[in-house]
Amino acid sequence: MDKILLSHGSGGTMMHQLIKEYFVPQFSLKSLDDSAVLEGINGGKIAFTTDSYVVSPIFFPGGNIGELAVNGTVNDLSMVGARPLYITAGLILEEGFSIEDLKTILSSMSAAAEYSGIKIVAGDTKVVDKGKADGIFINTSGIGIIEEGIDISPSKVTPGDKVILSGPIGNHGISIIAERNGISFNPPILSDTAPLNSLVNDMLKTTKEIHAMRDPTRGGLATSLKEIAIASRTCITIRENSIPVPEGVKGACELLGFDPLYVANEGILIAIVKADMAELLINTMKKHPLGGNACVIGDVKEDPSEMVLLKTSIGGTRIIEMLSGDQLPRIC
Amino acid sequence: MDKILLSHGSGGTMMHQLIKEYFVPQFSLKSLDDSAVLEGINGGKIAFTTDSYVVSPIFFPGGNIGELAVNGTVNDLSMVGARPLYITAGLILEEGFSIEDLKTILSSMSAAAEYSGIKIVAGDTKVVDKGKADGIFINTSGIGIIEEGIDISPSKVTPGDKVILSGPIGNHGISIIAERNGISFNPPILSDTAPLNSLVNDMLKTTKEIHAMRDPTRGGLATSLKEIAIASRTCITIRENSIPVPEGVKGACELLGFDPLYVANEGILIAIVKADMAELLINTMKKHPLGGNACVIGDVKEDPSEMVLLKTSIGGTRIIEMLSGDQLPRIC
Repeated sequence: MDKILLSHGSGGTMMHQLIKEYFVPQFSLKSLDDSAVLEGINGGKIAFTTDSYVVSPIFFPGGNIGELAVNGTVNDLSMVGARPLYITAGLILEEGFSIEDLKTILSSMSAAAEYSGIKIVAGDTKVVDKGKADGIFINTSGIGIIEEGIDISPSKVTPGDKVILSGPIGNHGISIIAERNGISFNPPILSDTAPLNSLVNDMLKTTKEIHAMRDPTRGGLATSLKEIAIASRTCITIRENSIPVPEGVKGACELLGFDPLYVANEGILIAIVKADMAELLINTMKKHPLGGNACVIGDVKEDPSEMVLLKTSIGGTRIIEMLSGDQLPRIC
Repeated sequence: MDKILLSHGSGGTMMHQLIKEYFVPQFSLKSLDDSAVLEGINGGKIAFTTDSYVVSPIFFPGGNIGELAVNGTVNDLSMVGARPLYITAGLILEEGFSIEDLKTILSSMSAAAEYSGIKIVAGDTKVVDKGKADGIFINTSGIGIIEEGIDISPSKVTPGDKVILSGPIGNHGISIIAERNGISFNPPILSDTAPLNSLVNDMLKTTKEIHAMRDPTRGGLATSLKEIAIASRTCITIRENSIPVPEGVKGACELLGFDPLYVANEGILIAIVKADMAELLINTMKKHPLGGNACVIGDVKEDPSEMVLLKTSIGGTRIIEMLSGDQLPRIC
């Protein structure tokens, strides 16, 4: 392989290979988690994260690239238990991009930041010649404070833990692919883009015994669970019957040939928690607007290590791998 | 105006208008400085900055996009007196980009980070379809600690202050434009890309009476000085005779019709300092490999406010404005 392929950006197997082979040896990456957790900053811990957004189309049912970029970084900070504080916005614009669209996107970023309580404190704008970008790309990088006593990392996942999912899967990915291909559903399928920090805040008030969290974006629920299984050297077993898939997403996936387990989400989370805290946490989550459908979808076992197993609705067992190839490029 | 033009990214007048009109009303930008200074992070101050790099070509005499991206963010942190600690790398790759080139760029980023003592702690990789980007774009965002007693901001600039320049101007911009147009100079003109944190560290050990600093990148020395004059409501007067312009840069500028005052630099700084500290600082700077040509190029007066005046070598006075239009697009 000597050229970059679209699937190198899909969030799945090929991206993980690329990162392992070329990035890990060169960079001081703290882990392959959503945010780096940095200790000793003025005596405390902070989380630091970056994400570039290249979603196509930039406007889609339920959102646009601007709010997606803010919410996505808020969520990456939240997944390590950080309280999001500050965010930067790095824009790459293509010559000829509509200033009206830019205004709409900036105002969505501002509204999203205000909603989640994060402040956009620094920015950068570059313009490239027509044909050298695709309208607008946005990088957001964020920092947040991790309070004492909070330590969320896949390495803490232990056999016996329960796997909680906060809401239905597949809405974001399907909304994008539908818009891209001019398909419309009735009722429309909207992206679930939303900031998860307030939900996480409620969860952490209930218990600090949350071992790992992920927002299953690129690569979907399947890829995120596989990442956790690998990082924790455990086996995660999930039950197909327990996973909420909206009827519309189910239908669209059948029509388009996608597996909802691999479709990107932008407003739900997976939490792996100490078993005896699961019920309490679910009660807390159900009271939050983003956690109404929270449920236990599976649990953590010791063996077979680094595997994800799906108990299917007809009673079989399927091995779940990471997304391979490029099911849905440029989904975020 | 309803479309983005290349000149909106040039660092000059049009970019400032765009930022003032559309970004400032929406974002909580701390200032238009290189980095946001954030107080109260675990009880202390940190600096936070972001920059996207879209330089074309990605390999140029004296450097490549990877080390430029690391050094640029190290420098933005250094300009507010922060000690650079951590940096993120957000890559946007075009489908078909050479993995060999990617390896070279990542290894340059790693070497640049190691050289300046900053750690690359988080990353993100997106891939867009062929023809929707230009090889590789890199965003770097960085954080650094600002020690107590350091308070560098254009608002502190006072009439009577001296303007120090750390080295010769024009090398980076000319190296890029030459490479882009297949022109070669003998001796070659190399980009000055370099991390300024160690020079700044030496300067701050000598005195904390540094009022403002800038690394004059996009828009060049002229635009940076004009930004400081506006932010401090002072008049900055500089002497053409005192500004070091290498012979090669002078010749290239004549040939290509550029004014060296507006050409981008990536390894020099302007410092506005208390007058009685200028000599001491210059002595310190001259001992540093990046400060060998340090000199006073002008001083700060009260009137006419928000103006930059150039005393020309033939005894006249020229009003210096920001760069207008797109002298050199995609210079960083």
